Amino acid sequence: MAEKITPRAQDFSQWYVDVVLQAKLADYSPVKGCMVIRPNGYSIWERIQRELDNRFKAKGVQNAYFPMLIPESFLKKEAEHVEGFAPQCAVVTYAGSKELEEKLILRPTSETIINSMFAKWIQSYRDLPMLINQWANVIRWEMRTRLFLRTTEFLWQEGHTCHATAEESETYTQQMLKVYHEFAENILAMPVLMGKKTESEKFAGALNTYCIEAMMQDKKALQAGTSHNLSTNFAKAFETQFLDKDSKQKHVHQTSWGVSTRLIGGMIMTHSDDKGLVLPPALAQMHVVIVPIYKNEAEKTGVVAQAQKLADEIMAQDSVKKLSWTVKVHVDLDETKQPGWKFHEYELLGIPIRIELGPRDLEKKQAVFTRRDLSKKEFLPLDTIPAKVGEALPAIQKELLEKARAFREANTFKVKTYEEFKAKIEEGGFFEASWCNDRELEEKIKQETKATVRCLLLDSSFKPLMTDDPCFMTGKKGPNFKAIFARSY
Amino acid sequence: MAEKITPRAQDFSQWYVDVVLQAKLADYSPVKGCMVIRPNGYSIWERIQRELDNRFKAKGVQNAYFPMLIPESFLKKEAEHVEGFAPQCAVVTYAGSKELEEKLILRPTSETIINSMFAKWIQSYRDLPMLINQWANVIRWEMRTRLFLRTTEFLWQEGHTCHATAEESETYTQQMLKVYHEFAENILAMPVLMGKKTESEKFAGALNTYCIEAMMQDKKALQAGTSHNLSTNFAKAFETQFLDKDSKQKHVHQTSWGVSTRLIGGMIMTHSDDKGLVLPPALAQMHVVIVPIYKNEAEKTGVVAQAQKLADEIMAQDSVKKLSWTVKVHVDLDETKQPGWKFHEYELLGIPIRIELGPRDLEKKQAVFTRRDLSKKEFLPLDTIPAKVGEALPAIQKELLEKARAFREANTFKVKTYEEFKAKIEEGGFFEASWCNDRELEEKIKQETKATVRCLLLDSSFKPLMTDDPCFMTGKKGPNFKAIFARSY
Repeated sequence: MAEKITPRAQDFSQWYVDVVLQAKLADYSPVKGCMVIRPNGYSIWERIQRELDNRFKAKGVQNAYFPMLIPESFLKKEAEHVEGFAPQCAVVTYAGSKELEEKLILRPTSETIINSMFAKWIQSYRDLPMLINQWANVIRWEMRTRLFLRTTEFLWQEGHTCHATAEESETYTQQMLKVYHEFAENILAMPVLMGKKTESEKFAGALNTYCIEAMMQDKKALQAGTSHNLSTNFAKAFETQFLDKDSKQKHVHQTSWGVSTRLIGGMIMTHSDDKGLVLPPALAQMHVVIVPIYKNEAEKTGVVAQAQKLADEIMAQDSVKKLSWTVKVHVDLDETKQPGWKFHEYELLGIPIRIELGPRDLEKKQAVFTRRDLSKKEFLPLDTIPAKVGEALPAIQKELLEKARAFREANTFKVKTYEEFKAKIEEGGFFEASWCNDRELEEKIKQETKATVRCLLLDSSFKPLMTDDPCFMTGKKGPNFKAIFARSY
Repeated sequence: MAEKITPRAQDFSQWYVDVVLQAKLADYSPVKGCMVIRPNGYSIWERIQRELDNRFKAKGVQNAYFPMLIPESFLKKEAEHVEGFAPQCAVVTYAGSKELEEKLILRPTSETIINSMFAKWIQSYRDLPMLINQWANVIRWEMRTRLFLRTTEFLWQEGHTCHATAEESETYTQQMLKVYHEFAENILAMPVLMGKKTESEKFAGALNTYCIEAMMQDKKALQAGTSHNLSTNFAKAFETQFLDKDSKQKHVHQTSWGVSTRLIGGMIMTHSDDKGLVLPPALAQMHVVIVPIYKNEAEKTGVVAQAQKLADEIMAQDSVKKLSWTVKVHVDLDETKQPGWKFHEYELLGIPIRIELGPRDLEKKQAVFTRRDLSKKEFLPLDTIPAKVGEALPAIQKELLEKARAFREANTFKVKTYEEFKAKIEEGGFFEASWCNDRELEEKIKQETKATVRCLLLDSSFKPLMTDDPCFMTGKKGPNFKAIFARSY
């Protein structure tokens, strides 16, 4: 029954696919590049949705839904936008048995269709800010796909906001990046750097793009979320205007920001190990599993009764009830499977805490307690276990983040010269360098090292962090940017 | 600011559009037949999703996500299915700047793509039952569309289950219809008849289809949800088989069931009135609005303080906290709008309870309390209001259902002859008749009266309810079916 997971050290890519498929998180579909998100994976997405949705609503954002079909002419209204997305578009040419007069694009993102509505809804400064989010599927035709990380169809949320001034839209763009940062660290337990994309990497149609970047266990970077200041680019293309307090017609200043099912892939590659998934408790559907062990009916009665009592006690524990997610405890009474098989299965699925309880444990008033992230068995007195669960769950959440952060820090290197960078890039990691931010050099780096500028680092007021050090490539005197370079997904 | 809503008596269709547009529930989009669901409408959908999702999960159903693009060849594998859906399909013919080798259909429903995965996932009787649900958008090219009720793209859930035996799938099909029935009545406050569709009205590819049918205020019927017993039709087309306990390979027996954003339209046409939306509290985003009234700063201080105190007291009230939905109380402090404008606005939006509080009320320790569904002002002592809210919200929920049920009953007529039916059909309503269930007669009814058989009524064990009365059309002796006829959306 149990297939073997390829060890990370042997083949990281294959390890990832093994974990995703064997833990039944996702599967390949018969449609090229599209994936199926299976219940174990979808439940993680539901947790992500719930947590993000609460955060958006706390910022005054409301959900809405816009058509997934976009007239081809809309996409063409913003010049950079169409240039960026046209090669990835899937196109509907006939419908209802007739050829369409105008081709319809399956949304790769919704700035255009949403602006066509904003233009209708927004009349006056009183209508601003307008803060909208959409949970939706999008289609971007991809050549090389990878489960969760890059698929032709994916699920995401896309926020779209309109503001009266340039300052306000810039502030909001930054604010949403901070929401993503806090969410990534506290819920996914995935440490992320906040930064700014270079001109060549920004969103097609944006004034600027901020991003969060994470480091995977293979030391590659993963762009985990982006927040764009669109300025008035789409507002001008769609005539999204408002009558301001000074009685002048003005274009609105806009933002858009999104994260996708890619986060599930990032979370897996941040925490999981050669036994399978390691799931931060904040994302788990099941937090504690109790496996009763017995050989006969006489043993069964006592063990099962104690297991169920323990489950009730855990859920009644104050420190457990106080956690910000509802803790679920499962007593596994399935008799068609052996305990050993179950241990393996729950490790594969990443259930944060496993408790084993046999007749000998019952005699000693103890149980075997194992944290999935540590995989170390402890024998604990039964009456201490509910409190232990209340401590362990937030501890796992916190320690997963700390461990990942320590890993990133241990694999982030400052480089002073391009030669030094080229020598080290094969080993992987993030490379911090003083850089002049020249577009041609950016291309040269990509060509020669397969690495890219992940982001320009920011100071506490979201200005690019500048340094007086000379550029690591040209030796040009400062001020230069502090940039992060890495190979990425 | 306030546009006038066309009265129902004058033009029911226009009244419906006026309510949907003015309450900002939805809007027309630039893409023919597609609608935009605005925040006020989407929040209702979110409540529907939450309530249904809890019910599905309580029945062991798990959510998943399947590609929205379906290879054309898949649709063709089940003969009746392709015949039913092909005319409504939207087709992707090129993507990534290339013409596709095989055309891809935007899912009109997902039986085919899901079966291709079930065939891979299901090996043994141990894998059964498999109970999956998907929340998704679907596309069905429609000629005549109507906001929420019939749109080219709509949002829905589609449940898909696999079972070992025919009995089990039939039982599950019925069980999910009962879930829809309970949900429609208790959450939407929309009374529905449970029935069976005739052969010509059943789902393309099903053995049989059960449905819930509601009566709108114009006495037309609305099909509000369907549950299909697919038998082994799709399993045979996709070779979805399992090794049974008796070591034989067998095809799984399947069900599928769905409801959509159409429910929002049905709910509107069931309860709303000439002032706008009337929202059952279980679907409301905001349950109570308190409008403070004052003319100067001196008055403002006392009135606003009392309004906020009252809001806190309402939310702290035990009977309010015990309700199965979280009650939200809003104190409207917006000074750019007049109280009269606000009253009108909250009536339009269907907020279940409105409380007005002015300086004279404060002196008298009272407030003005108005239930949206009754529109009758009451002066109540301030200290009785929290308890009153705790009573009124469930009372509104219950009375909306009772009122709608009484309306349906008053407009359901038993007819003994086809002549009698034809004479009365212009006035609208449901017509119950003893009927032989002949396919040619069904067509004749449609042609001559524009009415259709909505469903065959069922007895308590889900068998068609039979009668010894002669068929109302042919006079054929019983046993005949008890059928409901009506004009419908």
